[in-house]
Amino acid sequence: MNEFDLIRRLTRSLPTNKSVVVGPGDDCALLDMGLPERLLLFKTDAVVEGVHFKAGTPPEKIGHKALGRCLSDVAAMAGTPSAVLVTLALPPTFEASVIEAMYDGMSALARRHDVAIVGGETTTNPERIVISVALLGWVARGKGILRSGAEAGDAIFVTGELGGSLAGKHLEFEPRVAEAVWLARHFQVHSMIDISDGLAGDLRHILKASRVGAELLAASIPISLEARRKAKAESAAKPPLLAALTDGEDFELLFTVASRDAVPLLDAWKKQFPKIPLGCIGKITASEGITIRDKQGVRPLTAHGYEHFS
Amino acid sequence: MNEFDLIRRLTRSLPTNKSVVVGPGDDCALLDMGLPERLLLFKTDAVVEGVHFKAGTPPEKIGHKALGRCLSDVAAMAGTPSAVLVTLALPPTFEASVIEAMYDGMSALARRHDVAIVGGETTTNPERIVISVALLGWVARGKGILRSGAEAGDAIFVTGELGGSLAGKHLEFEPRVAEAVWLARHFQVHSMIDISDGLAGDLRHILKASRVGAELLAASIPISLEARRKAKAESAAKPPLLAALTDGEDFELLFTVASRDAVPLLDAWKKQFPKIPLGCIGKITASEGITIRDKQGVRPLTAHGYEHFS
Repeated sequence: MNEFDLIRRLTRSLPTNKSVVVGPGDDCALLDMGLPERLLLFKTDAVVEGVHFKAGTPPEKIGHKALGRCLSDVAAMAGTPSAVLVTLALPPTFEASVIEAMYDGMSALARRHDVAIVGGETTTNPERIVISVALLGWVARGKGILRSGAEAGDAIFVTGELGGSLAGKHLEFEPRVAEAVWLARHFQVHSMIDISDGLAGDLRHILKASRVGAELLAASIPISLEARRKAKAESAAKPPLLAALTDGEDFELLFTVASRDAVPLLDAWKKQFPKIPLGCIGKITASEGITIRDKQGVRPLTAHGYEHFS
Repeated sequence: MNEFDLIRRLTRSLPTNKSVVVGPGDDCALLDMGLPERLLLFKTDAVVEGVHFKAGTPPEKIGHKALGRCLSDVAAMAGTPSAVLVTLALPPTFEASVIEAMYDGMSALARRHDVAIVGGETTTNPERIVISVALLGWVARGKGILRSGAEAGDAIFVTGELGGSLAGKHLEFEPRVAEAVWLARHFQVHSMIDISDGLAGDLRHILKASRVGAELLAASIPISLEARRKAKAESAAKPPLLAALTDGEDFELLFTVASRDAVPLLDAWKKQFPKIPLGCIGKITASEGITIRDKQGVRPLTAHGYEHFS
């Protein structure tokens, strides 16, 4: 049983109540707590030493990544983060200065996004560091973007460049919070997710939630310099396109809009965010599954993103 | 550096914003998200295998405890829990049926308190189980009870019986959510906390936050049957009174009210919750520190509760 099968099994019959607008299965839970114009976003995300970062990673970067992943999930719903709680589980011999450096990394990122760190907990995990961040945010009613809204014919967009994140970006990425809020304000975005499992894996989450398929254009997928470098330097490395499709931890936005909005969106984006690439990489199809079109023609995409417990 | 010193150091200069009413240092964070009549409560709590429960503990009870601790913290502020997210970090060999049983334990408790489980995450922690629960709740404006409101002359109350929790109660306690809401509705409770570190340790948190002291009456401290049994059965065990003061994980409510409210409170409580003991165990004093009065007279209490990282 892999991670996704397990989650499906666990989430079949969870307790719910009248505050729940969206429960498990999207980037954040969406709650109606009675605010007249807003819904609340609620999210947790954990990073584990040896799984999400190596022992010896500079502690500031560990802190940055732990919070950044949560902010990226808020961005995926076009939300605004408000406050976080931080749970640190640490070997008992841990040095206070290292923990402070982790908090420095989190605090710097939190300040840039006007996010309050309102507490948390330190506890013991004898063998390795675990950091879990819980986040509370909000989104204007009607502006939250789910995974389930993609429609056949939609154009598929992705920000930034993909692949090779382990070379450094996975510890240093800036979550696309402002960009996502801008998108939701100016365009009717049908579906959105942030890329953590890899373009192919996360696109599958949108497709499954929306009961549609996708055709990708191989030549349009933005491949990072790091993925190209790695493929050149290491004969056993993934080809650059496969790295862009499957490496994961890019923390870019993947979203769909009606095809008629594609050109106006590209124009407006270029004016608003001239330094951040945005590319149309394919279209949503009525038939399920992902196909990829290149010079040789169209074929099904079988590669998929990284799964825990696989 | 112990846990409390570390937390003090970490929380000196955390990012804040205009939503924060109470940040780190109380049972929950208190946030103003613009609801006209309510503030939000935000809390996380983690349990770690080998620290908070033994390997081999029935998974339903682990789940119950993980959620129960968070609910107890909400009770400590007289709040009402709404929704939780669950982060499970597990050895990769874990059986799905065991994880489901943990969720069953959490779900049963959640349903009794009308709490929705709105998602979370499973990830890998190779050596041991870590469960972190993040909770969102609310409290009516003006009804949230902090640690910092105790006043000299207040009567100190505690619910239930204390000590010997490891015999079973730490896995099975029912968080005092309804009792705390009732207290805040009917009486002016000056300060409150739930007992996790032990009566002495948690009373110190109230005293420190309120800049006061306390005198306890040894004969009035409610000692559990388990603490008495253990003292009788094991010559090396703590004396029962010391167990009640320091064992911890009782998850009872410890609170203070003006002395004039003490008798009306006891009368009303007995009618409302006839099965739950409530006892007045002493009074708040202007001079700092804790003293304990018994047949031999008054002496300072030096025993203190369990601290991580000590």
